[in-house]
Amino acid sequence: MQVNVVLNKTTSKDYSVTIDSLKDLIFDTKVLIVTNTTIAALHLEALQKKLFAKELYTVILDDGEMYKNFDSLNLILNACFEHRLDRQSLLVAFGGGVIGDMTGFAASIYQRGISFIQIPTTLLAQVDASVGGKTGINNRYGKNLIGSFWQPCAVYCDSMFLKTLPKREFSAGVAEIIKMAVTFDQDFFEWLETHDLHDETHLQTAIYKSIAIKADIVSQDETERGIRAVLNYGHTFAHVIENQTQYSTYLHGEAVAIGIVMANTLAQKLKLLSKEEGSRIKALLEHYELPTHYDISDPEAFYDAFFLDKKSAHDKITFILAKGIGGNDMRNNVPKETILEALKDTNV
Amino acid sequence: MQVNVVLNKTTSKDYSVTIDSLKDLIFDTKVLIVTNTTIAALHLEALQKKLFAKELYTVILDDGEMYKNFDSLNLILNACFEHRLDRQSLLVAFGGGVIGDMTGFAASIYQRGISFIQIPTTLLAQVDASVGGKTGINNRYGKNLIGSFWQPCAVYCDSMFLKTLPKREFSAGVAEIIKMAVTFDQDFFEWLETHDLHDETHLQTAIYKSIAIKADIVSQDETERGIRAVLNYGHTFAHVIENQTQYSTYLHGEAVAIGIVMANTLAQKLKLLSKEEGSRIKALLEHYELPTHYDISDPEAFYDAFFLDKKSAHDKITFILAKGIGGNDMRNNVPKETILEALKDTNV
Repeated sequence: MQVNVVLNKTTSKDYSVTIDSLKDLIFDTKVLIVTNTTIAALHLEALQKKLFAKELYTVILDDGEMYKNFDSLNLILNACFEHRLDRQSLLVAFGGGVIGDMTGFAASIYQRGISFIQIPTTLLAQVDASVGGKTGINNRYGKNLIGSFWQPCAVYCDSMFLKTLPKREFSAGVAEIIKMAVTFDQDFFEWLETHDLHDETHLQTAIYKSIAIKADIVSQDETERGIRAVLNYGHTFAHVIENQTQYSTYLHGEAVAIGIVMANTLAQKLKLLSKEEGSRIKALLEHYELPTHYDISDPEAFYDAFFLDKKSAHDKITFILAKGIGGNDMRNNVPKETILEALKDTNV
Repeated sequence: MQVNVVLNKTTSKDYSVTIDSLKDLIFDTKVLIVTNTTIAALHLEALQKKLFAKELYTVILDDGEMYKNFDSLNLILNACFEHRLDRQSLLVAFGGGVIGDMTGFAASIYQRGISFIQIPTTLLAQVDASVGGKTGINNRYGKNLIGSFWQPCAVYCDSMFLKTLPKREFSAGVAEIIKMAVTFDQDFFEWLETHDLHDETHLQTAIYKSIAIKADIVSQDETERGIRAVLNYGHTFAHVIENQTQYSTYLHGEAVAIGIVMANTLAQKLKLLSKEEGSRIKALLEHYELPTHYDISDPEAFYDAFFLDKKSAHDKITFILAKGIGGNDMRNNVPKETILEALKDTNV
């Protein structure tokens, strides 16, 4: 005997990303703002004035990637329980990618899932992390290895919050913008080569353009079974670098910048990218004072570390590579020798 | 500026529930069986002979509702990490509802979600828990308050595993069968009144019938925004009873049996159910030697405990009630006095 469970597939809901000054937000439910000490000091009061809820609570976490762990997740969940949030309640992620990822994860597992909105305060979170519903925490095995796909019900990107962003964090966000351009949009890349993002109007355009690319990719492949993996360009290398440096030397976007250059070295070996294209990408990263070099003391150890990265399936590493500027390719059959050569070459 | 993220809603996939002797299952991936000490001793060897995987691993947890917690969840996740399971790997929940709920939850958050199958070994899990994708763990605030909706990719119900089921656990499963019949199917209820489920053929029919009802409800409302809540008939009371007795006095199905009788007392007060119908339901529960009485020493405390149950929204308790036999009603506006009266009446 057999019974078929036919599902209506109504779990994921479409949502919009607003790139504008934040307007008043009014909710007839309990709302819990999740933020960190840095953002709380700078912007929490401003946000609280714009948020109208049945009951409004706030939980403030320590700031930094090293706090993206189970203990912080538990602080969010405990705040939910203590304030008796119910299934109609809303979480608000107010911070960078770390806050967004953890708040989204908490929302996805509190009472089997409640709604949340993203109000990203870093450039990286605005152009990348806040859109697409990837949530998670790190553990001793690596980054984001525990998490879920859980989409926000809305994202609000207000450039006002970027005014207090430290210079390094600004550049780290630009690295993700460059990532999108290199792999998906040649015109956008060329525009970036001639428009400095320290200009506010240009920045706004670049944020919009990056989110539009990301939204398009996520719409095609929400749970990263195919094309969405291209957004990990540079990340396979970056994760190893972050892991080897205990997440304390580089900001995520900085590690991605280095990872892009490493991926390009491999792409050049595989004749996917010309030397000149590689140089143009590197030059653009360097224009924003992003790091582009990491000293690999032990290429074999670096290679082994790939295998704990979750993008590897069946013990094969999938490399996301630029195919010229504006194109991309995924390769999971690169010989170990070629990879090791590329790793050694990045040391030159 | 605004960007719309349009999702393809491909997260949930339809699946089938097979009610038959377990056939060989062959997977070209890593497979991790999650089970408990009791089931491992009785049936693990038999299962391992039927499971063919690229690599086959097992993690054995302690047996009991009190182990449905974060520590056990972590044991499953750590086994996933240690055996380097990837996004193509599969978890197999081999046990009762506790194993199924925790395995499903682990599958939903390991690397943002991997597949799992259910091979339920208790009657309760076969007719109810294994179908529908509710996963979760308990914590000090209550039952299943952390979890997700994550559907299995297949469910296999083999009555062979029920042969070793203790009598109390068998009856606890029957309580959930009676629950389905009372709230959804008068004919099925009347059939149950005249067919003893200790007969194997009758049991098979009842399992099939219960799963068919459940599958139909889950298909209509996967994430319990409406009709699916009817499946919680008896559970609002049961959760309080289980909490007050530290999950150690009653099996879940036993607490549900008591909860059904309590809900019926309230339904009678609200003129939804006749006294005679209440007696018939109670008689059927008693036929399977299920408990139907719990001494409420402090009705006010019992009432307060409703509010930590996740089914309450905006500080209103929703009661799932039988509307005659074969019908149901949800009420979230029952006056506190009426509820307290019903709670006192159950003590008579």
